[in-house]
Amino acid sequence: MFTLSITPRFYETDAFGHINNTVITGWFETAREPVFRLFNPSMEIKNLPLILARVEVDFVAQIYYGADIEIKTWIEQIGNSSFIVAHEAWQNEHCVARGKAVQVYFDFSTQKSGRIPDQFRDQLQQYLKSQ
Amino acid sequence: MFTLSITPRFYETDAFGHINNTVITGWFETAREPVFRLFNPSMEIKNLPLILARVEVDFVAQIYYGADIEIKTWIEQIGNSSFIVAHEAWQNEHCVARGKAVQVYFDFSTQKSGRIPDQFRDQLQQYLKSQ
Amino acid sequence: MFTLSITPRFYETDAFGHINNTVITGWFETAREPVFRLFNPSMEIKNLPLILARVEVDFVAQIYYGADIEIKTWIEQIGNSSFIVAHEAWQNEHCVARGKAVQVYFDFSTQKSGRIPDQFRDQLQQYLKSQ
Amino acid sequence: MFTLSITPRFYETDAFGHINNTVITGWFETAREPVFRLFNPSMEIKNLPLILARVEVDFVAQIYYGADIEIKTWIEQIGNSSFIVAHEAWQNEHCVARGKAVQVYFDFSTQKSGRIPDQFRDQLQQYLKSQ
Repeated sequence: MFTLSITPRFYETDAFGHINNTVITGWFETAREPVFRLFNPSMEIKNLPLILARVEVDFVAQIYYGADIEIKTWIEQIGNSSFIVAHEAWQNEHCVARGKAVQVYFDFSTQKSGRIPDQFRDQLQQYLKSQ
Repeated sequence: MFTLSITPRFYETDAFGHINNTVITGWFETAREPVFRLFNPSMEIKNLPLILARVEVDFVAQIYYGADIEIKTWIEQIGNSSFIVAHEAWQNEHCVARGKAVQVYFDFSTQKSGRIPDQFRDQLQQYLKSQ
Repeated sequence: MFTLSITPRFYETDAFGHINNTVITGWFETAREPVFRLFNPSMEIKNLPLILARVEVDFVAQIYYGADIEIKTWIEQIGNSSFIVAHEAWQNEHCVARGKAVQVYFDFSTQKSGRIPDQFRDQLQQYLKSQ
Repeated sequence: MFTLSITPRFYETDAFGHINNTVITGWFETAREPVFRLFNPSMEIKNLPLILARVEVDFVAQIYYGADIEIKTWIEQIGNSSFIVAHEAWQNEHCVARGKAVQVYFDFSTQKSGRIPDQFRDQLQQYLKSQ
């Protein structure tokens, strides 16, 4: 499992007085960076062989300004050419949001999606929740 | 159906050269504003009796800087205390993203979610896709 | 003079109930796009020969959600290798923010800043306020 | 002096491949939070007696994704009803941006700006650069 600590920023609040919902997809993208790094250790942006196909977020409770968030991230499922990353955001010992992201492997040599090579598959498996 | 035209902003691009995925949830929130207005014609922020419970986005194709986006928004389903809003984003005559948002009716008098009152139910029904 | 109309988005508000100050630099960048187009008609991103050197913003009055903003943009001064773009944001017939941006001409052939070529100089002059 | 470490987020990049300029005003706002805390230890948002009057940013060098930023923040000048906060952003041992923010003291009892009370003046002085 990967963990990321985030301090909410004031400009991330909205007029309801809480963290705006649209901010969470950005936090979850940030929490997936160690996953991107598995596929692209140098983090040279142009070489990342992943495409984001889908995201889902469940907003479980209000997220407040003034207390840190812990984001837990793991691999939920590994398919042929895609895999699912799962996230939970916790604040003050409550789960405040859950999310999933479907990432597709993009084969630069064929310029389309393709089977996730075994070298990456092995790495992803180490982050399956049951592991 | 509601429609909204959006001109992508340069700061909404990312290092891949396209519009960043996390921007789309913000555009879809903006596209739901006419729905919020049904529940709160004065748009006094504190009086909106809706809570966002869930969002989903499918990223269908790259979204480019330099061409307008048309977002189509309609009501997909009306439940007891919640309803589903559906979105499609189109650019250059292609659907580039699809999304859903689950909005829950919040009853201020009881301070919890509750049955959507008939007056709002009638209005939502006019935006069901089959209508 | 260039003008741009902006409808504030809900996620651009903050917990004070107004539009967050950090949003304005993004709106002003968007208002400079016609200036970028003078230097790069095709808007191919990699070919824009301009670097942003400095921005200033004066926050004159609260900016509210729920009413459109008109941004007026003009060229304030043309120097040897840089020029100053000026902005005013108006809402409900009041000036709510003023800003300036210093843009430097970047000569791709020498890979450093250089004198603004006459062809661009002529175009900029048409947008000087006195014109 | 206050210091804040920021890990650039992928969605903060733009199509030029660097961190977008508009992001910096948000980082600097975040770097001012310890200053806000001097005026409002509980960080109850509604009680912050400060208004942002002006910001300036000088973009000194490209800011890259993939390396942390250190933001140094101090008080540059204390006036009657306002004070100036200064910032520097450093990455890989280079100063990449400098900024200033003019904050005005807002007296809730008179509902307008007013002299900064001595208790806050004393605290601000501890963060003057010469101290």
